[in-house]
Amino acid sequence: MNPLKDLQNRAINTIRFLSADAVQQANSGHPGLPMGAAAIAYTIWTKHLKINPKNTNWIDRDRFILSGGHGSILLYSLLYLTGFDLSLEEIKNFRQWGSKTPGHPEFGLTPGVETTTGPLGQGFANGVGMAIAEANLAARFNVPNYRLIDHYVYAIVTDGDLMEGVASEAASLAGHLRLGKLIYLYDDNRISIEGSTDIAFTEDRAKRFKAYGWQVLRVEDGNDVESIEKAITQAKSDERPSLILCRTQIGYGLPTKQGTEKAHGEPPGQEELQKAKINLGWPVEESFLVPEDVLGHFREIGERGVALEEQWKKTFIKYHEDHLELAEELERRQSNQLPGNWESSLKNFETDSKGMATRKSSGLVLNQIAEVIPELIGGSADLAPSNNTWITGSEAFQCDNPVGRNIHFGVREHAMGAVINGLAYHGGFAPFGGTFLVFSDYMRPAVRLSALSHLPSIWIFTHDSIGLGEDGPTHQPVEHLMSLRLIPNLHTIRPADANEVREAWISAIRRKDGPTALILTRQNVPTIARGKYSDAKGLHHGAYILKDLGTKHPEIILMASGSEVDLIIQTGEKLNEEGISVRLVSFPCWEFFQAQSKEYQNFVLDPTITKRIAVEAGVGLGWERWTGNDGKIISIERFGASAPGDMLLREFGLHVENIYQTALKMI
Amino acid sequence: MNPLKDLQNRAINTIRFLSADAVQQANSGHPGLPMGAAAIAYTIWTKHLKINPKNTNWIDRDRFILSGGHGSILLYSLLYLTGFDLSLEEIKNFRQWGSKTPGHPEFGLTPGVETTTGPLGQGFANGVGMAIAEANLAARFNVPNYRLIDHYVYAIVTDGDLMEGVASEAASLAGHLRLGKLIYLYDDNRISIEGSTDIAFTEDRAKRFKAYGWQVLRVEDGNDVESIEKAITQAKSDERPSLILCRTQIGYGLPTKQGTEKAHGEPPGQEELQKAKINLGWPVEESFLVPEDVLGHFREIGERGVALEEQWKKTFIKYHEDHLELAEELERRQSNQLPGNWESSLKNFETDSKGMATRKSSGLVLNQIAEVIPELIGGSADLAPSNNTWITGSEAFQCDNPVGRNIHFGVREHAMGAVINGLAYHGGFAPFGGTFLVFSDYMRPAVRLSALSHLPSIWIFTHDSIGLGEDGPTHQPVEHLMSLRLIPNLHTIRPADANEVREAWISAIRRKDGPTALILTRQNVPTIARGKYSDAKGLHHGAYILKDLGTKHPEIILMASGSEVDLIIQTGEKLNEEGISVRLVSFPCWEFFQAQSKEYQNFVLDPTITKRIAVEAGVGLGWERWTGNDGKIISIERFGASAPGDMLLREFGLHVENIYQTALKMI
Repeated sequence: MNPLKDLQNRAINTIRFLSADAVQQANSGHPGLPMGAAAIAYTIWTKHLKINPKNTNWIDRDRFILSGGHGSILLYSLLYLTGFDLSLEEIKNFRQWGSKTPGHPEFGLTPGVETTTGPLGQGFANGVGMAIAEANLAARFNVPNYRLIDHYVYAIVTDGDLMEGVASEAASLAGHLRLGKLIYLYDDNRISIEGSTDIAFTEDRAKRFKAYGWQVLRVEDGNDVESIEKAITQAKSDERPSLILCRTQIGYGLPTKQGTEKAHGEPPGQEELQKAKINLGWPVEESFLVPEDVLGHFREIGERGVALEEQWKKTFIKYHEDHLELAEELERRQSNQLPGNWESSLKNFETDSKGMATRKSSGLVLNQIAEVIPELIGGSADLAPSNNTWITGSEAFQCDNPVGRNIHFGVREHAMGAVINGLAYHGGFAPFGGTFLVFSDYMRPAVRLSALSHLPSIWIFTHDSIGLGEDGPTHQPVEHLMSLRLIPNLHTIRPADANEVREAWISAIRRKDGPTALILTRQNVPTIARGKYSDAKGLHHGAYILKDLGTKHPEIILMASGSEVDLIIQTGEKLNEEGISVRLVSFPCWEFFQAQSKEYQNFVLDPTITKRIAVEAGVGLGWERWTGNDGKIISIERFGASAPGDMLLREFGLHVENIYQTALKMI
Repeated sequence: MNPLKDLQNRAINTIRFLSADAVQQANSGHPGLPMGAAAIAYTIWTKHLKINPKNTNWIDRDRFILSGGHGSILLYSLLYLTGFDLSLEEIKNFRQWGSKTPGHPEFGLTPGVETTTGPLGQGFANGVGMAIAEANLAARFNVPNYRLIDHYVYAIVTDGDLMEGVASEAASLAGHLRLGKLIYLYDDNRISIEGSTDIAFTEDRAKRFKAYGWQVLRVEDGNDVESIEKAITQAKSDERPSLILCRTQIGYGLPTKQGTEKAHGEPPGQEELQKAKINLGWPVEESFLVPEDVLGHFREIGERGVALEEQWKKTFIKYHEDHLELAEELERRQSNQLPGNWESSLKNFETDSKGMATRKSSGLVLNQIAEVIPELIGGSADLAPSNNTWITGSEAFQCDNPVGRNIHFGVREHAMGAVINGLAYHGGFAPFGGTFLVFSDYMRPAVRLSALSHLPSIWIFTHDSIGLGEDGPTHQPVEHLMSLRLIPNLHTIRPADANEVREAWISAIRRKDGPTALILTRQNVPTIARGKYSDAKGLHHGAYILKDLGTKHPEIILMASGSEVDLIIQTGEKLNEEGISVRLVSFPCWEFFQAQSKEYQNFVLDPTITKRIAVEAGVGLGWERWTGNDGKIISIERFGASAPGDMLLREFGLHVENIYQTALKMI
């Protein structure tokens, strides 16, 4: 027997049974994918993947994505075997409280995990963002004699990924952009949870991906390392993204479950597992068995990676000498540092009673930022002229112009979300994506994952209420603002005017440990007189006193965010003319306010002032937190309607007279 | 000149300029699609569409969907011209307050509008549901000599639709199911809002749809009525769904804007519009011009439809004689009546301290209902064994078995949502779709539209909290329950035990004017002793007193829904042992409770009892509405974690001891 081949087989079986033993021990998990796709993973990792287990932040490493995140234990096994900071103990603690080996891979928790996956299709689409990142960085930083940025994005993708719309959108975009660094290996096991893919998924996947502009390759036997290796090599030589269909058997080795849905998502059972080991010539005595030579074999990959990065660093030192500015920019961006004093370039907006839409001031601020923050990159899901997301100082990112910083996402909100997350996962960027607020629903899974994975993605949601007018209820968000506030770790900011927009953008750009959603109007809002009312920097406290009107201690608090702030200001002035003392509170970000001290909170929302009115052009549920028992909420508790925006606001009670009368009744 | 052809051209121009005049008058809207696709719409409506403007509920009518809902004025023009209950005045009132001609088509508002569209991709996928409806009804009700059900689903679909993932998912499913009644005409104008489709959408669409298993046809000139007519005829003759690519010019006729993104979404301007009229030989003097012979021509279609339905009715009378039971069932289902006494077949669940998961009791109830409600149809996005959505008395719906009532949706949550809505739009069904609660995000746009369109869609969301355990935070909903409660007109019901599950299902089946979301556990919950605690029928009030424990007037109210109800019961008993009087409130549905009288609300949440604790395994924001200022909310304000479910509940404070201590501190 060929000893190398024997080692190889044993290495693959090591992955299989480490994974299966872990699932069995956890009494929970998914043995099918790891056992079926072990050889694919082995081939990628040992034959091609450029990684350094000792530095998970090396910018030019290849990225590996397990898009079928339910097979997490496959990834954990590889991380442990190749020498990442993940012990065998952690493998044994699979899916347990406090372990680094949760049920689905979580970015930031486990060293070497490049993306949070599990919700299907996300990893697939994240990879497209990573490949955009690679292409853009290469275009910016590579110069003759220096290919500093030159890495691949590998993924193992599954039937479930290919069925999900988000992956279809992303695949179409990747084909259009000719992202040749994408190499996706499809674990074509023809089994999904309800049974054979014949019951629901009989399309010609190869033909579909060819239609998108991908190179499509086939490996007839997903356990055939040589064929997989060859296919990957062929994928690398093509300038199109590549999909390699690898015919596999789910739960390979399991005597009764292999090739059936029973292998997918439950422990094999002790007996089935033992028999599988016997089937594949694996010792049955010991669980979590890692033969020493196998471990050595895997650790060599790690050592190879260390050497590769060493070489890269040497190149970088020379690059630093020859191209100081570029080198410093790359270092800065990679280490998540912002340029010194960048905020000073952002202009104040003058007081203006006509004002401008916050989507417009956002576009102005975005462009000021783009001049000083070259890592700002993004686009819109075909609504750039409406979302004001275009960077005028740059061009479109296209395959023949990868240096462009404007991405045309097409009408693909969900892929946009996941691609923006992919740019954030990759590092070196401040990525943003824009659409109408109502269509945040189309990309909500990606928004959630940006929050869960602590990604600094910036979401620009314009047309934020019925104020958008004639497009009607299908386009008018009602529940969306509040539903974004519900997502943990998402900063949802709804600025009231152009100067709050600037502060909101500052907050979004500064933030490195999570996403920010900017909620912006279609319609004009006045630029508040900041001499008379307090500074827009109050935004960073989440809620702040714009002004106490009148000479007495305020009898009532009026609070709102966004376009409704102007309404409470007008109402406050009117009440004050009647001799009523009013506190006006601008409330752009609940998350910020909740993070303030109790003292500050009580300073703004003085507990002795129980008469409070909150005004919001959206559902009111939740505002009780701030208005208390005695407060009133002026809100919208139904879907919108089609008519000019100012008429709608009047018909729905979002006007000064209504707030004024409500306040009078209260006092 | 051929007078017929002249009439035809003038009829098409009538559509064009009615639409453009309306947009111009509204000073808002989308002239590009109506002007570019007028000939396509004309051909479908005059040459093929089987409709009766005088009866929009004829079950065997063809369905027409304008998936690019921004072109709504095209549809309104056709409805007016062919004689639906929509006046020319309404066309002139396009996009105005109180009109029947809103910015995007709204089902239920405008007679003849079959689907609410605007959010792209939805109409495309709704049509797939309608075609499933047709195939299933045909399989059930057609018998030799009676083809009672035999109609087509036409749609005009756009670049935006084809880019959206939801349409990709639906197209793959439609191809798999060989839904030959689907005939989609693609308005291939190669323009999207950001510019030419060359910037983001260069895939080979024809090849993609062939890969899905569709017949793909081409019409080189989208103004060529004969070619379009021929293509539709060819589409009808094939047993696969058909996509007809019609090459069009957006804003056809506009001198400077035709063929550019400027024609898409803004009024053409008076001068541009005048010139367009001159271009196409249209009188410029009069706006909203409808030549008499053109109107007569269109009204003939209406009359044809009246005659067709008359014929159908005659057939149905005979059918009624020959096949009484089937005829009565069809009549009943079409008129949205439930069988008499259907609820009596639903069993009570016995008290059981071990109990069962509510997903399991839901599966049992669903199957009891399926036996008496033949219109119950649905499935899961590849999670049927986990969601317990399988109707055991039926089979899978497949192209070779269209009578089946179990739909394998594949891993396509979003398409599932829109397809279920399509079944509901079609009529004759009580459709349901299931997935994990966390993946409600993947289909949220469809859930929203079911609420906006008043569809009786039933959403089954299982695995409703961190209680699901090891799968970890990617699979653990935290914000989802509350975020569903935010959607207007959606009944979000989270039953506490098997008997509440039964009542929740009764409510969902009874409801005909809107959707219901059932929120169900993965883990066991006890079946509450209904002798000791009050009847589960209280669910229909939204919140109800399970019991007042103790002899005194309650000092504290404990409230919860779903799996947390058992926690408050245990806590209440424990407090009562300490001599504390406690009110226990089960709170399965906020929407129901809000619809109760103030008296009932005050009866349950007695205003004199200000000490209140709400317990929920999700974000707490919103519970303040019921706990008030002095209450406490025991909730989860972060993402979950991967570990066994009971350990997670303990670690996250969702346990009796924590509630007990919180209560003690309060008292």
